[in-house]
Order: sequence, then C-alpha cells, then structure tokens
Amino acid sequence: MQNIKQLINKIATLDAKNLFGHDFINTWDKKETDLRQLLLVAETLKAMRDNNISSKMFDSGLAVSLFRDNSTRTRFSYSSAANLLGLAVQDLDEGKAQIAHGETVRETANMISFLSEVIGIRDDMYLGAGEKYMREVGDALTDGFQQGVLPRRPSIVNLQSDVDHPTQSMADLQHLVKYFGNLENLKGKKIAVTWAYSPSYGKPLSVPQGIIGLMTRFGMDVSLAYPKNYNLIPEVEQLAAKQAKENGSKFEIVDSMEAAFENADIIYPKSWAPYWVMGERTKLLNNKNHDGLKALEKQALAENANFMNWETDEAKVKLTKGGKALYMHPLPADISGLSCVNGEVTNKIFDRYRIETYKEAGWKPYVIAAMMLTSKFQNPAQVLQQMLNNASKRVLF
Amino acid sequence: MQNIKQLINKIATLDAKNLFGHDFINTWDKKETDLRQLLLVAETLKAMRDNNISSKMFDSGLAVSLFRDNSTRTRFSYSSAANLLGLAVQDLDEGKAQIAHGETVRETANMISFLSEVIGIRDDMYLGAGEKYMREVGDALTDGFQQGVLPRRPSIVNLQSDVDHPTQSMADLQHLVKYFGNLENLKGKKIAVTWAYSPSYGKPLSVPQGIIGLMTRFGMDVSLAYPKNYNLIPEVEQLAAKQAKENGSKFEIVDSMEAAFENADIIYPKSWAPYWVMGERTKLLNNKNHDGLKALEKQALAENANFMNWETDEAKVKLTKGGKALYMHPLPADISGLSCVNGEVTNKIFDRYRIETYKEAGWKPYVIAAMMLTSKFQNPAQVLQQMLNNASKRVLF
Amino acid sequence: MQNIKQLINKIATLDAKNLFGHDFINTWDKKETDLRQLLLVAETLKAMRDNNISSKMFDSGLAVSLFRDNSTRTRFSYSSAANLLGLAVQDLDEGKAQIAHGETVRETANMISFLSEVIGIRDDMYLGAGEKYMREVGDALTDGFQQGVLPRRPSIVNLQSDVDHPTQSMADLQHLVKYFGNLENLKGKKIAVTWAYSPSYGKPLSVPQGIIGLMTRFGMDVSLAYPKNYNLIPEVEQLAAKQAKENGSKFEIVDSMEAAFENADIIYPKSWAPYWVMGERTKLLNNKNHDGLKALEKQALAENANFMNWETDEAKVKLTKGGKALYMHPLPADISGLSCVNGEVTNKIFDRYRIETYKEAGWKPYVIAAMMLTSKFQNPAQVLQQMLNNASKRVLF
Repeated sequence: MQNIKQLINKIATLDAKNLFGHDFINTWDKKETDLRQLLLVAETLKAMRDNNISSKMFDSGLAVSLFRDNSTRTRFSYSSAANLLGLAVQDLDEGKAQIAHGETVRETANMISFLSEVIGIRDDMYLGAGEKYMREVGDALTDGFQQGVLPRRPSIVNLQSDVDHPTQSMADLQHLVKYFGNLENLKGKKIAVTWAYSPSYGKPLSVPQGIIGLMTRFGMDVSLAYPKNYNLIPEVEQLAAKQAKENGSKFEIVDSMEAAFENADIIYPKSWAPYWVMGERTKLLNNKNHDGLKALEKQALAENANFMNWETDEAKVKLTKGGKALYMHPLPADISGLSCVNGEVTNKIFDRYRIETYKEAGWKPYVIAAMMLTSKFQNPAQVLQQMLNNASKRVLF
Repeated sequence: MQNIKQLINKIATLDAKNLFGHDFINTWDKKETDLRQLLLVAETLKAMRDNNISSKMFDSGLAVSLFRDNSTRTRFSYSSAANLLGLAVQDLDEGKAQIAHGETVRETANMISFLSEVIGIRDDMYLGAGEKYMREVGDALTDGFQQGVLPRRPSIVNLQSDVDHPTQSMADLQHLVKYFGNLENLKGKKIAVTWAYSPSYGKPLSVPQGIIGLMTRFGMDVSLAYPKNYNLIPEVEQLAAKQAKENGSKFEIVDSMEAAFENADIIYPKSWAPYWVMGERTKLLNNKNHDGLKALEKQALAENANFMNWETDEAKVKLTKGGKALYMHPLPADISGLSCVNGEVTNKIFDRYRIETYKEAGWKPYVIAAMMLTSKFQNPAQVLQQMLNNASKRVLF
Repeated sequence: MQNIKQLINKIATLDAKNLFGHDFINTWDKKETDLRQLLLVAETLKAMRDNNISSKMFDSGLAVSLFRDNSTRTRFSYSSAANLLGLAVQDLDEGKAQIAHGETVRETANMISFLSEVIGIRDDMYLGAGEKYMREVGDALTDGFQQGVLPRRPSIVNLQSDVDHPTQSMADLQHLVKYFGNLENLKGKKIAVTWAYSPSYGKPLSVPQGIIGLMTRFGMDVSLAYPKNYNLIPEVEQLAAKQAKENGSKFEIVDSMEAAFENADIIYPKSWAPYWVMGERTKLLNNKNHDGLKALEKQALAENANFMNWETDEAKVKLTKGGKALYMHPLPADISGLSCVNGEVTNKIFDRYRIETYKEAGWKPYVIAAMMLTSKFQNPAQVLQQMLNNASKRVLF
C-alpha cells in the first residue's frame, strides 16, 4: 500500500497535458511528461490489482475494438484493460458490419459511439492508411461530440498502425524500467534494434519504428541495423535521429547485426518487410492484383533468403555487453528449429529469455488501461487515490 | 435532476399493461399508453446517463443477441442498452451453433435462456418468416418457464423482422418528439414515407412498414408514395389506414415523391424491395435456386432503374412545408455522388440533415434499453426512482 | 434462505482437497468428497439466484473460452457461469488468432492469462489430443505462475475432451440427485448407457465415457451396451469396471439395448463413433486425407445402418423398471420423424421426457460456475456465506 501511495504521489507531481481528452496515436505526439505519467499509471494499476484493490471506475460503458488484422495478445490485452476499468468490449467486425456497403467512416464512427468510452483500432496492413484512418475516425468523433450527437468523446487507442505501435513500445519501455530498476538507469544504455530473417513476409514496420521513435527519447543510444534496402519509413528514421540529438544520445543506422549488437545492453531483433515492399504491397492490395501480390511475395522471400544469417545466435549475443544483453521481442518470434527451420533467433537464445519476453508482454494490459484511464480522467492521481480509499476488493477473498 | 423527477412522475401516471412480461414484436401489439411510457423511460434513461447516474439494475444476467442479417448500428445499440442496465451480451451465432444440425427452435430457445433476461432477434430476410420465428421462440420460452425449466421468462426484443422494425420506428418517434418539442405537437403534422431509388436490391420492407404502422397512431397525416407495383405488405398498409381513421388523421397512398412531399413537415425517403419481389426472393432462397435469384436481382434492378428520378433533391424538398421538412433516414443512406452514383438522396440534402439523422439514430440504444426495462420490471417509475435515490455514479468522476 | 444456510453448512463439512488450485479435466481425477462438494456448491448457487441473491464474487477478471468444436449449449452455459460470478468472457478464436502461425501452446497460454481467472476448453475431435492439449496448457500456466509471469494461476475447465465431458456428467448427476431426491437414493439404481443409431457419424466418445466413469462411483449399477466393435476407449471401460468393484456396485457390458434396459431405473441412449473409427479419423485428419475421410465416413455410416434398430422406442422402454425409467440425453438428440427419419429415439418417447432433458441441461451453468468457484476459492462455504450475508440483490426488484 505504501508503494501504491508513493506511485500516486509521483503521478500527482507530473503535469501531463496531452493525455486527457486526446487520442493515443503515436508516442511522439506526446510530451515526455505524458509518457512518464502513463508509465506510472500502468504501474499503479498493476500494483492495485496485485493487492486485490478494484480499479473499476466505470459502472457501464463500451470499449469498442476494431481489428483489421489478426491478433491474439493485443486482443486479450485490450479486453483485460477494458474489463479492469469496468468497460464491456464490443467488437466491430467489418466482415459482419455494413462498412463494405458504402457507409462512410464518419457515420460508422458515430454509430458505434453513443455509449462508448474508448475505441481501440489495429490497422497495420496498408502503408499510409492505418494512422490516417485512425485520425479520420478521431475527427468524426470530435465532430459528433461538438454537434451534440455524442454525449462524450470516445478516445482512440492505437493498437498498431502502419507507423507506430505505442501499446507495444510503452509496454517494452515499462519492462526496461523494471528490468534496469528505474527510468533514469536507461540513460546511456545501448539498444540494438535490428532486422532479422524470417521465412514469412509482410510483417509490419510499426514495431521497430515504435521502438526507435520511443527509446531515443529516454537517453538510450539506439543502433538500428538492417540489410541494404530494408529501411523503415524514412520520416520515422529521421524523427529518431532528431530526438536522439535533442536528448544528447546517439542514433545510428548500421548494416549488420554484429555492428548493432556490439556492446549493446538490450537487443531487439525482429523481422519486417522493407518499406519499398510494404509500399508496393499496398498498391497491389488496393488494386486487388493477386498475381502481382504472389510475384511480390516470391521476390521478397527470395530477397530475405540472402540474409538468413541475420539470426540471433550465441556468437552474436557474445558481442553484447558481457554477452548478457537483454533480448526483447513482441512475440510470437520465429524460432529456428522450433516454429520454423530458420528464423529470427535460435531456440537456445530464445529459451534463455523466454520468461523475460512473457513479462515484457505482461505489461501490455496495464499500459492500455493507463491509456484509457488518462484519456478519460483529467486527474489520474485523484482517480487512483479514490479507488485506493474505496478499498473495494477485486476478488471477494 | 428536477427534469428526471418530472419524467419519472409522468411515467408513474401511465398504466401500461402490455410491456411487463411481454415480448416486443410489433408496435401495433401495444396500446398507446404502452408506447408513451416507453418513450418516457427511454428519455429518462438518457437523462440519467447524461447526469452520470447509474441505471445498472442487473448485477448479472445475459442479453442474448441473434442476428440473422448483418448489422452495425443495431448490434451496437443492443450491446449498449444491455450494458447500461447491467446485462452481458452473448451472441448466438448460427454459423457456430448447432441449429443447422436438426436442433429444434424450441430446444435452442430454452438452452440459451437458463440465465438470460432478454433475447434480441434480427430476422428480416425471409418474408413471412421473421416475425413467425420470433413468436415461435417466444412460445418455447413461455412453455419452458411454465414447466419449470427456466427460472424467469426472457423477453424478446424484435431488432427487425420481415414486418416491423420497432426499435427503429420508436427511436424515430422519439427523435420527432424532441425535434418538435413534444408528442402533442406531432398532431396534424404531415409525414411523407416514400420509396427511393437505390442501386442495390432486396432492402427489407420493415422500416417503411414500421413507420406507417406507428406514425398513424399519433395524429400524424401519413402520405405513402411508391411506384406502381412497389407496394408494402397489403395487411400493413390496411392497418395504417385503419389506425389513421381511428385517430382522425389521414393516410394516403400516392404514386410520386412530389405528391407525398407536398407541404410535408417530415420526409422519410428510403428504398425497399417491393412486396412481390420479397415474396419471390423468399421462395427462391428457400429452394436455394441461385440462378433464379440472379435472374430476379437482374429483373428487380432493371425495374428500379426506371425510377432513378425517385431521388430526394433540392427541387423536391422545395415542395415541403417552407422547403424545410425534416429529412429522416435509418442509415446508411445511398447518397448520390458519395456512396454511389445515383441513390436515394443528393449529397447536398443529406449533408444538411446528416447530424439530425445521427441524433435520430442516437435514440436507439435508449429505446432498446427501455424495451428491456419495461418488459422485466412491473413498475418502471419505481425502478428509476430507486436508481435516482441510490445516486450511484456511472463514471467515478 | 434456511435451505441455503443448510446447504452451506453441508459444504463446510466436506474437506475437498483437489478442487482449489486444480484444473478440472476428468471427474476421476477427483475424490468423491470433491465431487460431493461440487454438487452442493452448484445447488447453492442456483438457490441463491432463485432467491435473487448476488453471487458476484469477482469485480473484474476474464473467463477465456476456447471452442475447437461447435457448441451452443456449452458456450451459453460457460458464459452464464462466468457472468454469474462476475467474470467477463473473452473468446479465443483460433481462426482469428495467431496459433496457426507457429506460436506455441505454451506461449499462447500465458499471453491470454495475464488477467484471466479461468480457461474453458472444448477439444473433442481428435482422439488422444484433447485431454493432452488441456494438460499442456495447464503445465504452461503453472510454469508461467511459478516464474512470476502470471499474478494468479488460471484454472482450466474441461468443456469436453476426447476422454471425458465432466460438465455434462456432473450436470447429469445433479439432475439425478434432484429427480431421485438425494445422492444416497442413487445407490443400487440401474443406469443403462447404450449406443444408439444415428444418421450422422463422428460423435465424440466423451459423453458415454463421462457417464460410466462417474456413475460407477456413486453406487449405481451401470450397464453399457453397444454393437460389436462399437466399444469406447478400453482404458475408460476398465476404469469403470474397477470403480464399480471398489464401490460394491456392478458394471457390465452387453450387446443389446434390450439387455441394458432390462429393469433399468435410468436410460441414457446416445450415438457415438466407435473407438476404432475415431482413431482412424484422427489419423486421417492429421494427414489431411480428405478422400480417406470420405471413405471412412461412408464405411462408418454403412456400418451404423446395420444397427438401425438401436432406437429407443415404446417396446424397449417397457422393459425398464415399471416401464418408467428416466430417459436422459445431453441434447440435441436425433429424434426419429422429427429431426431425422431414423434416429436415436422415437418422437413419442423423446417428447415424454423432453422437459426432463431440458432440466438436465439446466444444471450445466451452475456446475460450471461451481467448478470455477471451487478452483479459485479455498473455502467455498465461507465465500457463499459471505455472499449470503452481503445480501446484494441480483436484480433491483
């Protein structure tokens, strides 16, 4: 309890201005104070649950989910977060829904929001489309609220766009905070964000982009590595460089896993489809060019095959600081010899860090709940203190 | 609060006899007193929510939903209503369920109802089948309750049948009450319910039927317009005529949009598939005659194309009272130049009334919640007063 | 209330040691005391609900459901049970989820469990796989809990495996307790568990196995009947024989419905696919041998057709004790002349016991809720007494 009170006191000292009444689309839309408060709220919610204290601050209300791509862990994280705060999840399934029948985004956004508090959206398949769609929904909600259609403005939580994956990157940051003791300890740490070989194709760019776009703000030296032509969205790479500069930390792009791993404290190796492939793919998908898509997949996989040695193995890990860098992954990983023949990481290395990757993932429900809470309540410290005072139990015994 | 107390007092004066313990299938199964009470309960629930007062009157219990046709807005309205009162939604998905495997309606109705309070059903595709199915389910529930299988009799809410669409028409009526100040002001107002051109085919008859079956009871003059052979179910047209007569108002059928719009206070232009097409289609669907269905679609669309001028445009709207009739639509509309080339309404007219149509839709969750509440509680005024006294907050702050 | 207090007092006297902190996979994993307590908890939960007393002991938390086979009644029973205790259901839909993409069971088990209390699994299609899968998930959860990944260990409820169907058999037992007055009255009663003809194929073995594996423990004489080569899993038949012996009751296997029905107090006739067919089918399914599956189905149906006289009809029922044995079925039954031409039971016999089969099914939500409750709370009597003391109403009025 003492710990919870201290956390709440810390939250009270932070003057976050871009959370309440705002959507959460990209971490770089927020100030450092916002992100610090969010981490503390997530930690407090976890501590309250661990101490069997209810954080049900809604007696009713919907949390809408819209998944335009498959998802297990984010779906469960979102449901868990909504339920923790007292909201009921209602899925908007476009397969079942009427969106395909000429209904505009603007209209649907209002129709699903009459009694809704938050809308979580995953839309990461089409380059240039996901974030745009979220902002379009957001504009429609603002319009609906201002015109008296909606009694409250639901807030949007980006559950992965084509650009950023803030629930992932913030959960990752929270994991690092816990692993290294506190946020200040992350200063000067080197994190290697590297491409890795995968036998599949078309993995979104938003995870590595989210990591370089976030970690460069907290004093970490970020080393981004990928084979030639496997770059991320150029604007995001530039953003990361700019942020590192402002922070007095480093951001570099190198062309080998080994260079990135050299003396790294943290390694984050993960496959992605290069920017140009994602762009090409988006065009082909929009044109429903199935032959073109097959040809592109073949070409991309053949290209990938040239870089099968971009696998995290014992030899490469030895290059990291003391050979003991923390391995991170958003899961599921392509594990060589376990889930595929050749993949992103050897079974041995993955297994060593398996439990850590699970713990990393375990922060996601609380990070999402914190995004919900801070977007809906002006004074998070007051809300949490009230729940603590109420001392209502989550489980009877 | 004063307003809420006044609403509750009004509810207490109305002796509704056909809501508690009854299903809600058609509005014309109910007395005017029933419908008046329902509107007031819906308004009270909205006022309570707007004032952050909880209306969670169930601590547990299921609200079953069964959608035999696609739906976005009704699905969300139903979920919102259930959640508002404290019920959890469980979808009966016949794709997943065993209904196709020879299980009788009677059995399934009982199996899904052991701990259920309400069952919402959309079944509007087959002429002569939707309402029949709902009544069959209702009979099975009554039987199950009487024989001691079910501890309580879940009540059915018609979320759109082949005949009526009461959650739509009652939300529409509530919108009119708010737009024109009160229910009494609707007396003598002219409402034009007209067919409109659409590039699609097979839209259900239940919306126009619901409107003429409801508005003829509240003193409005109803002008129904459609091209030759585009009539609704004859029995429903006759019902509307009879009701108008009993009410001292008018009901007419005309053969042009212009005639209906003439001096109208309210216009409700919406496409539908003519009665004979729906009948033919039902036969073909039952026989799984895919070639026949294609041929019918082709024929119906060709027929529709003769009436492309049944579009709500500036010139026609000029004919209405002061050129300012209220435009209504259940959404989504086929908007010319926006969601289709030629449709039900021009983009300009639709845009002028867009926010009004959103507000119209916004009553649906509260109307459904009122149907649930009044079917389960004998004394709605007492229930609402109790919630008001409890003064439990919906949101913590 | 007096009744509820008596039930709670009885629960307090039973020292169940294998429920709290344990999964519920097979009834034979539990001691008789465990099962007795479970029945009493189910009965208490029903009595509390019938008296409008809330049994919401969770303020938040997820109940995960994973259905690898179609289900209506079990799905609704599970949802009802979860809702009754205060948990929100989140479905793990492997169609939508990433399990197919190389994700290991171990990982998924943890990813869906960060804020989950129970996981209900139906996996009955593959012989040798369903129970194995549940135990694998259970091991992953234990590991995750011990390693600090999960704050609590969710408990698994077997919603039907290839081996046992404990939520069905326990609901059946509870139904017998009510029908015959009490558990002690079941001693010496004869129950006929027999194969029955069905025009379909591939029905799981878990229902008859669950019944013979449970009823032989409560002093009932079990007569199992099937045509030659239609045996169940041999180990389960041996288990039933052993249990009967230990209990001083009888277990026999006979080769005609008539022999089993002779002087029976209870008859439980239900079709199943023989052990060898299920084994063959599992191999073919694993090899995706579609032609082989078609051939097997043809062969199995032809074989079934030899035993079309294994139908429960008036003549056979006359053989039972006083011609009045209680007919049981997990539903839906193949009813001759109603859901099929020739089936498991004549329409006349089924109709006579229809309401009883509905009541039988009505225990399932409470049995599942009791499994959830006893797995999560060390002292069920204390929990129930606390809910009774709280006297919080389930429905406002």
